[in-house]
Amino acid sequence: MPGKERRRGGGRYPAAAAMGLTTNLGPETVPDAFWGEHTSPVSRALLSSAVQCFARTGFHATTTRDITAVVGLSPGSLYVHFPSKEAVLFQIARTGHERALEALTSPPDDGDAGLRIRRLVAAHVSWHARHHTVARVCQYELAALEPDHFAEVLALRQRFSAVVHTAVERGVRDGVFDVPDVDRTVRAILSLGVDLVRWYRLDGADSPETLGESYAELAARMLGAASPAG
Amino acid sequence: MPGKERRRGGGRYPAAAAMGLTTNLGPETVPDAFWGEHTSPVSRALLSSAVQCFARTGFHATTTRDITAVVGLSPGSLYVHFPSKEAVLFQIARTGHERALEALTSPPDDGDAGLRIRRLVAAHVSWHARHHTVARVCQYELAALEPDHFAEVLALRQRFSAVVHTAVERGVRDGVFDVPDVDRTVRAILSLGVDLVRWYRLDGADSPETLGESYAELAARMLGAASPAG
Repeated sequence: MPGKERRRGGGRYPAAAAMGLTTNLGPETVPDAFWGEHTSPVSRALLSSAVQCFARTGFHATTTRDITAVVGLSPGSLYVHFPSKEAVLFQIARTGHERALEALTSPPDDGDAGLRIRRLVAAHVSWHARHHTVARVCQYELAALEPDHFAEVLALRQRFSAVVHTAVERGVRDGVFDVPDVDRTVRAILSLGVDLVRWYRLDGADSPETLGESYAELAARMLGAASPAG
Repeated sequence: MPGKERRRGGGRYPAAAAMGLTTNLGPETVPDAFWGEHTSPVSRALLSSAVQCFARTGFHATTTRDITAVVGLSPGSLYVHFPSKEAVLFQIARTGHERALEALTSPPDDGDAGLRIRRLVAAHVSWHARHHTVARVCQYELAALEPDHFAEVLALRQRFSAVVHTAVERGVRDGVFDVPDVDRTVRAILSLGVDLVRWYRLDGADSPETLGESYAELAARMLGAASPAG
């Protein structure tokens, strides 16, 4: 429901309730289109099952049987489609990071540094909220990747971070932002989008887009950029 | 080295390098005093070993053999000290949350809402940075707790969140803060302290205290609170 504002839920301290976390894994499945047209239907089903397993119990505690059982296949059949369990994680991590990077680079850049950073943060946050289960695997399970796979994913992460870093540097150069420390501030802005994979629920108070707009305003404030409305 | 400013490291995009993450687990051990005086030396050693194991491979993939091997004991000897592997996780989670709460509530409150929130954020961030390995277990492994243990830890988390929430509400009431949405902003402020467990290194560019001061300024900006210096 893009852009739809939902009623806020929660009790005395909704923020505290949100910090209850690690129970935010719902029945959401990854849309088939996420994996790309060159991935076979069985491979897609295995990848989506692996996302749920890795997110719930971690890469190391997940067996090939766990992954294939959901799809109704024997454990050994995983190897018809992937050379190893690690290869499944790698395809999830690479595709997840590629999709996040696509979402980040899709908003237009019309030259206004303040608007630019708001759009980037909104895209970053709303993508991670909508895809929080895949994103959880992309954020928390990378240490299990083999070194060359880790390096490839790290390169995608650096491109992602560089987009935000460049946008902040431009605002500083243009005199629109007032930032004591660019590196720390960029990292803090990225943390807002990353940490939500720990607690965000699609059936919670905020739609991905609402949270994205809200965090875009907080990021602009961190950068000392005045709100267009105020 | 409290308060010591270290030289910033990193390449073109230190923030991106920081996002390389999940390789931030160093050889740091938990100080014995962390576990409290009523915990025996063997129990302390087992708890500290379990922190490393849970942080590296997750609760579910950690065996009792993994935990006891580091201490030089047989796998079965764990049960002399703890009823179960889950009880080890519970003691880590409960103690970690109690220590974090002590750190949060130790700064004095002299009635200035702006100063209050800066001190709280600095305490929150620097504690999580200094104890990032224990904190990682406290943030990422709670889903493995049994329901009554989870509820007890959740109550500690709610007390933690309530301290920050109350401080923000007071600043809004006093007209010192300008906050469109208190819940979302409190959650974002807490995310800054939580997400660093994923990437922070004690041998990195910032000491816990430097990062705490930096994030305290960013939090004050999110709240629309002018810097005392500017």
